[in-house]
Amino acid sequence: MEHRFVAATYYRSLGPHPAALHVAAGDTVITSTVDARGYDKDRQQVTPRGNPQTGPFYVEGAEPGDTLVVQLEKVQPNRRYGWCGSSVAPNVVDPTYVRELPAAPLAEWDVDTQAGTATLLSPQSNLGSLVLPLEPMIGCFGVAARGGQAISTATSAEHGGNMDYRGFVAGTTVYFPVYEPGALFFLGDGHAVQGDGEIVGSGIEISMDVQVTLDVQKGREIGWPRGENADWIFTAGNARPLDQATQHATTEMLRWLQQDYALDPLAANLLMAQCVRYDLGNVFDPAYTMVCKLNKQWLPPRT
Amino acid sequence: MEHRFVAATYYRSLGPHPAALHVAAGDTVITSTVDARGYDKDRQQVTPRGNPQTGPFYVEGAEPGDTLVVQLEKVQPNRRYGWCGSSVAPNVVDPTYVRELPAAPLAEWDVDTQAGTATLLSPQSNLGSLVLPLEPMIGCFGVAARGGQAISTATSAEHGGNMDYRGFVAGTTVYFPVYEPGALFFLGDGHAVQGDGEIVGSGIEISMDVQVTLDVQKGREIGWPRGENADWIFTAGNARPLDQATQHATTEMLRWLQQDYALDPLAANLLMAQCVRYDLGNVFDPAYTMVCKLNKQWLPPRT
Amino acid sequence: MEHRFVAATYYRSLGPHPAALHVAAGDTVITSTVDARGYDKDRQQVTPRGNPQTGPFYVEGAEPGDTLVVQLEKVQPNRRYGWCGSSVAPNVVDPTYVRELPAAPLAEWDVDTQAGTATLLSPQSNLGSLVLPLEPMIGCFGVAARGGQAISTATSAEHGGNMDYRGFVAGTTVYFPVYEPGALFFLGDGHAVQGDGEIVGSGIEISMDVQVTLDVQKGREIGWPRGENADWIFTAGNARPLDQATQHATTEMLRWLQQDYALDPLAANLLMAQCVRYDLGNVFDPAYTMVCKLNKQWLPPRT
Amino acid sequence: MEHRFVAATYYRSLGPHPAALHVAAGDTVITSTVDARGYDKDRQQVTPRGNPQTGPFYVEGAEPGDTLVVQLEKVQPNRRYGWCGSSVAPNVVDPTYVRELPAAPLAEWDVDTQAGTATLLSPQSNLGSLVLPLEPMIGCFGVAARGGQAISTATSAEHGGNMDYRGFVAGTTVYFPVYEPGALFFLGDGHAVQGDGEIVGSGIEISMDVQVTLDVQKGREIGWPRGENADWIFTAGNARPLDQATQHATTEMLRWLQQDYALDPLAANLLMAQCVRYDLGNVFDPAYTMVCKLNKQWLPPRT
Repeated sequence: MEHRFVAATYYRSLGPHPAALHVAAGDTVITSTVDARGYDKDRQQVTPRGNPQTGPFYVEGAEPGDTLVVQLEKVQPNRRYGWCGSSVAPNVVDPTYVRELPAAPLAEWDVDTQAGTATLLSPQSNLGSLVLPLEPMIGCFGVAARGGQAISTATSAEHGGNMDYRGFVAGTTVYFPVYEPGALFFLGDGHAVQGDGEIVGSGIEISMDVQVTLDVQKGREIGWPRGENADWIFTAGNARPLDQATQHATTEMLRWLQQDYALDPLAANLLMAQCVRYDLGNVFDPAYTMVCKLNKQWLPPRT
Repeated sequence: MEHRFVAATYYRSLGPHPAALHVAAGDTVITSTVDARGYDKDRQQVTPRGNPQTGPFYVEGAEPGDTLVVQLEKVQPNRRYGWCGSSVAPNVVDPTYVRELPAAPLAEWDVDTQAGTATLLSPQSNLGSLVLPLEPMIGCFGVAARGGQAISTATSAEHGGNMDYRGFVAGTTVYFPVYEPGALFFLGDGHAVQGDGEIVGSGIEISMDVQVTLDVQKGREIGWPRGENADWIFTAGNARPLDQATQHATTEMLRWLQQDYALDPLAANLLMAQCVRYDLGNVFDPAYTMVCKLNKQWLPPRT
Repeated sequence: MEHRFVAATYYRSLGPHPAALHVAAGDTVITSTVDARGYDKDRQQVTPRGNPQTGPFYVEGAEPGDTLVVQLEKVQPNRRYGWCGSSVAPNVVDPTYVRELPAAPLAEWDVDTQAGTATLLSPQSNLGSLVLPLEPMIGCFGVAARGGQAISTATSAEHGGNMDYRGFVAGTTVYFPVYEPGALFFLGDGHAVQGDGEIVGSGIEISMDVQVTLDVQKGREIGWPRGENADWIFTAGNARPLDQATQHATTEMLRWLQQDYALDPLAANLLMAQCVRYDLGNVFDPAYTMVCKLNKQWLPPRT
Repeated sequence: MEHRFVAATYYRSLGPHPAALHVAAGDTVITSTVDARGYDKDRQQVTPRGNPQTGPFYVEGAEPGDTLVVQLEKVQPNRRYGWCGSSVAPNVVDPTYVRELPAAPLAEWDVDTQAGTATLLSPQSNLGSLVLPLEPMIGCFGVAARGGQAISTATSAEHGGNMDYRGFVAGTTVYFPVYEPGALFFLGDGHAVQGDGEIVGSGIEISMDVQVTLDVQKGREIGWPRGENADWIFTAGNARPLDQATQHATTEMLRWLQQDYALDPLAANLLMAQCVRYDLGNVFDPAYTMVCKLNKQWLPPRT
C-alpha cells in the first residue's frame, strides 16, 4: 500500500514520540522533508532548526529485536535553493590552524534537478564558478533510540541518526535495529551534494521529496545500521573517536558475514582481510561515522 | 640517468643512515624490495623482519626545506609466494569482540603476475576459493625523519613510513618533505593486494621489483606526504587517533590549495566543502593514516 | 523546607519525565537510591537494572539558562551488601591483553558503615583479605538532558549522568546547567568505594540514604557540570576520547574563571598554567569523564 | 662510585648516541641540565632548543631485556630565572574556543630555592601576584628507544622521554626498559613547578643541578616506565589518544602485580578494581601520558 503523508509536526530527537502514521510492513510512504534549519520547499520555516525529522512512521509488527528494512526509492530536492557552510569546521583541522579558517556567511547554491547540477552562487572568492553534479542523499534518518532514549538529531548511534554518509542515496536499502514497538522511523536533513566527512558541518542543505518502502525482518537482530546497494553491502559505526566508529563497523560486518552468509569465523576474517573497504561518513557531528564495505562479488550466497 | 641497484643492507628505521647510492635529481632507480619479514624473491631471508627498507638513496641537491618527488613507475611482485594475517587485529574490533577473533596461521597466496591474480591457498575455511585481482602497492616508504630522528618502519609520521595506503601504486607521484641533506629515500614492504585499513596487519606481503624516478623541488616546503595520479591530488596524515590523522590531512590539503593553486582561504574552504573525499590508509600500525583527496576536475590550474 | 521522599518509580534515562516531587529553591530532599541493578536496602529488586534513578525533582523557578545547585549533604550506604566487577574492562587494557583478563563472578563486599570499611568476601584469589575505607559517592546524577533528549543513565554529557567520579561525596556542592523547566534532578548509582576510572565497570555498588539541598542560580548559564568542596573548585567534561573530555573540562574552567572570578583571559590562562590539576572520572562508560580542578588558595574572591 | 659530569654535547633525541660517560651499576652521577631552550644556569644558550638532554650515560652490564633503575636523588633549580607559556595550548581546549585563547609573550618567574617559591613576574594581567611552592621535577628523561630508533625529545614512548609528569621528583625511583647495550640514560627539561597536563606546553622551565644513581636489574623485562616513591608504585603509558595511554599504563600495572607481587590474574584485577588511582602526565606533547598508581598499603610483599 502507498501512503502520501504530509507532516504537521517535526522532531529533533529520535525517540518514542507519538506515531505520525501507522503503516503495514511492505508499505510505501511518499512524503517530504524540510531542510536542516526547518525550511520547506517554499523556503518557509515551518519548524525550528536542528535537522527536523518527518515521522515517526509506526510499522505494524515491528518489535524490539527485529530489523527494520528501509528502501530509499526517491530522494529528490524539491526546491532550487540550497546552502552550506563556507568554512571547514574547527574540529576537522589541526588545532593550531583553527585561527586561519575564514569567517564567511553560508554559501548559497542553485540546485537544478533538471540539469542535475548545483551551482555555487555566493560568497565571492577567487574560486570562480563551481558546478557540481547532484548526488541527493539523506543526512539524518533512523529509528527510535535504544532503551527508551530520545537522542538528538545532531548526533548518531546504533539507531542511526545524523550519520551524514554520502552513500544514503536512492537505490539503497538500509537496515536498522528495532528498539521500540513499530520501530518508529524518522527521516530528514536532505543534502543535494555532500563531501565526505561533511567537513563544513553541512552538505548542500535542501528540502526533499522522498519515497521509502518499509518492511520488517522478524527475529533478526542487528547491532548497527547496515545497508546494501547493487554492488556493495555495508555497515555503519557511529562514535568518537573515529577509531571506535571503525571498530563498531568492522565488528558488525564480521557478525553479518557469519550471521547471514554462513561463513565460519576464519572465513569471515580471511574475506575481510584483503577485500574490505571503508567510506568516511561524518567527522563533524558529536558522533563520527565510519562505513565498512564489501563488494558483493566476493560474497557467498546469502543464507 | 638510470641506476640498477642491489641492496646489501636493509634498514628498519627511516633516519640518517649512510647513503646506499647517490643519484642526481631526475635519475631513475631500478631495484627490488624484500617482504615485510625480510624474504627476497627466492624466499630466502636476507635480513630480519620488520618492513626492511631498500636504500637510502641520496638525491643530490635535496636539502631540508625542499620537497622530494617520487614517481612510482614500477611496483611488481617478483615471486609467486605471498602471505597475510588471517585474523582481524584486536585494535580494529570492539574490545568485547576480541575474544571471538580466530587464531590461525598466516594465510598463503599464490601470486600470478601473468594472470594478474592472487589465489588463497591456506588456511582452510568454508570461504571456498578466493581469487583477487592484483593491485601491487608500496606499504612503507619515505625519507629520513624530522629532526635527526630514526623512526621505526612499523609506524609513520610527516616523513612517510608505514602508511599502508592502497593508493601507492605504479603511476602515482608522491611528495615528501626533506629533512636531511639528500632526503635519504627508502622503500619496502610491498603488498600484492591490500584491503583498506590493513586490518589484519598485513596485505598480501611479497617481494617486489620496483622502479622510481627521484626529483627535487627546491624551496618548496610541505608538511605531510602528498601525492597525485591521473585523476586526483591527495594528502596523507599519520597519527592516532584517526581524528588527528584526518586533521593533518585536511589541513595539509587546505595549505596545498592556497600554496600551489592560488586559491584564497575562502575559495580553498568552499572547494573542499562539497568536493573532498577521504581514503582510509592503515588502522593497524602505531600511527593510523587518513588520506584527503580532491578530483583534479575541480582544481584551477596549478601556479 | 525538608521533604522525605520515597520513590515509586525509577528512571534509566535523564530526560523530561514527569516530576516525582516539586520542591522550592532551597529545599532539602531526604530520600534513598537503589543500586545499579535496581536492588534496595533489603536486597529486593524493585526496578530493572541500569543505574535506576530516584526522581526527578522539579525545582520551582528553575528555567533553561539557569544553574541548579545541588548540595550533597548525606551519601550513606543503607545496607551491608555491596558488589563490583572482578575483571578490568576490555576497553581499559591493551587490545592484545583482552584475552588475558580473568573471567569471574561479581565480587561481593561486606560494607560496614559503623566501622567505615568494606571487606572483600568473594571470589577467592591469592590476594588474601582486603579491607578498604568507605568513601561513599554518587555515580550517576544530573538533570534532564539538553534539547528535550532523554539520555541513558549508562552515559553522561553536559547534563551530568553516569560520570562515576570519586569526588561526588557528601560535602560537595555540584552545579548543573538547566535545560528543562524545574531542572528535573535525578540521582542514583551509589558506590561505597570506587577506584579512579571505574575500570571494572563498577564501584562497590550499593543502595544509599541520601540528603540533598537544591537551589537555583537564576540567569547563570554554565556549559558543563561544575562543583566545589572546602578546598577545590572543579569542572567535569564528559566525552570520548578522554582527550575531548579534557578539552571540555579545561574550557569550562577557563570560562568559569572569567565569569565568576573577574579574571581577564590572560589571567585565567596564567593561573591554569601551573596550578591546574586533573582527576580521572570514568574510563568505562560510553562517555569518559575528566575533571579539571583548581585549589581555592589560588583564586581571587568570587564576584 | 660518584661521577661529577659536565656535558659538552646535548641530544634532542633518545637513541643510540655515543656514550658521554660510562658508569658501573650502582654508581651515582652528579651533573646538570639546561632548560628546554638550551639555556644553562648562567642564562647562556649552550645548545639549540628542544628539551636538550644531558648524557647518554652508559651503564655497564645493562643489556636489552634488562631494566634500568634510576633513583632521582637531587632535582634542584640552579638559577633564578624560569619561564613558561602564558596561554593554554590549542589542543587542550574545545576547537571552537581556540580563537579565544590570548596571545602573549612567555611568562617569567623568579625561582627562589631558598624560599622554595616561584613568583610570577610578567606578563601583566589582573591576576595580581602569584607565588607558588617549588616542586622541581624532570620533564624529559629515559633511555635509548626501542629497535635502534632515535625518538625526538618532544615526545615519549616505551623508553620514556617527554612525559612531563609532576611525579618525577627527587625521592622517586624510576624503572626503564633497556633496549640498547648500556641502556644509554638521558635527562633534561627540568621544571621548577608544573601543572597537571603541562597544558601551556611548559612547566616553569629552568636549568637544574641533578643527582641520580643508576642500577640494573638483570633479566627483568618491563614494557613501560615504572616508578615508586615512599607511598606509591606507578606505571606510565605514553600514547594518543589518552585512552590508549590509559590502556598501556593499566596493562603494565596488571603485569607488574603478577610479575613481582605474586598475585594471580584474578587477585591483580580485584586489587586494581577499587584501589587504582590515575595521575595525568602531559596532554600537550605528540604522545600524552597517563600514570596508573597503587598505594603500597594495599600491596602484598614483593617477591
